[in-house]
Amino acid sequence: MSDRHIQVKTLTPEAFAPFGSVIDRSCLEPRAMNAGMARRFHDLAKIEIAGQDARVVIGVVEAKAYPVPLNLPLVERHPLGAQAFVPLTDAPFLVVVCHDENGRPGRPQAFVTTAGQGVCYGMNVWHGVLTPFGAPQDFIVIDRNGPGVNLEEHVFDEPWIVTI
Amino acid sequence: MSDRHIQVKTLTPEAFAPFGSVIDRSCLEPRAMNAGMARRFHDLAKIEIAGQDARVVIGVVEAKAYPVPLNLPLVERHPLGAQAFVPLTDAPFLVVVCHDENGRPGRPQAFVTTAGQGVCYGMNVWHGVLTPFGAPQDFIVIDRNGPGVNLEEHVFDEPWIVTI
Repeated sequence: MSDRHIQVKTLTPEAFAPFGSVIDRSCLEPRAMNAGMARRFHDLAKIEIAGQDARVVIGVVEAKAYPVPLNLPLVERHPLGAQAFVPLTDAPFLVVVCHDENGRPGRPQAFVTTAGQGVCYGMNVWHGVLTPFGAPQDFIVIDRNGPGVNLEEHVFDEPWIVTI
Repeated sequence: MSDRHIQVKTLTPEAFAPFGSVIDRSCLEPRAMNAGMARRFHDLAKIEIAGQDARVVIGVVEAKAYPVPLNLPLVERHPLGAQAFVPLTDAPFLVVVCHDENGRPGRPQAFVTTAGQGVCYGMNVWHGVLTPFGAPQDFIVIDRNGPGVNLEEHVFDEPWIVTI
């Protein structure tokens, strides 16, 4: 059984790079704007989308808290677009991703965010559903809307257990 | 002088429709997702962009507070893309927009947001810079990155005064 256990790591841009972007202003130097009245941390994540008549849309997701250790029965991916989640509070949440292995997800990797971090899952990257823990959490979501099948799910033969 | 004074109105999707979208989950019915563990308020704003090699990017802007009544010396617009601002706190901020009149901004209209509201300025819509008041405020910004000149500023002959 122990080989179904995944230990979370701290989320860093370097560790997450194969899967997408960490949205984290502390990783960038800001640029001044509006005559010094504001500063911008630019280009924290690119929202790639594919397909005709597709657009980037903004939504809000209210997610319930999951118990930890996390039971992970499935992952999903979006073949036609990246998907970014930016938390509206400083609470941490779990981020689960997998490399693709011949069209199927490999062994999951799990990360826990630190305050202020969001993530952008790259187009077609296997990832777990939104999993706050401890308390419910609201997120801004930026992703693709348009025609075409943009969701693929993979249910594991046996669930993984993610331990914090 | 009194004709340079603009009185703010409460921001509503109807009043703002000619200028873009109000990003406000309370205006939509959510849809369930993740087996009932989350609900999504979908498509609160579309991020239109124009031009080759352009992408939608996510940034963070930290904006200082402006004194009110607000002195409004200029507005700007982005010919190649919409620009969305989603506040990370529930504090209100000022939203100033103008209809275009033969390539120049007409008389400004000013709105004050209510808790949880963001805005998406439509492509090429004249608008004021980000103006929190009372306290500094952080925003998620979703807009365009790419080649081309995507900023046009207009300095008024005489500033407008926006009164709350």
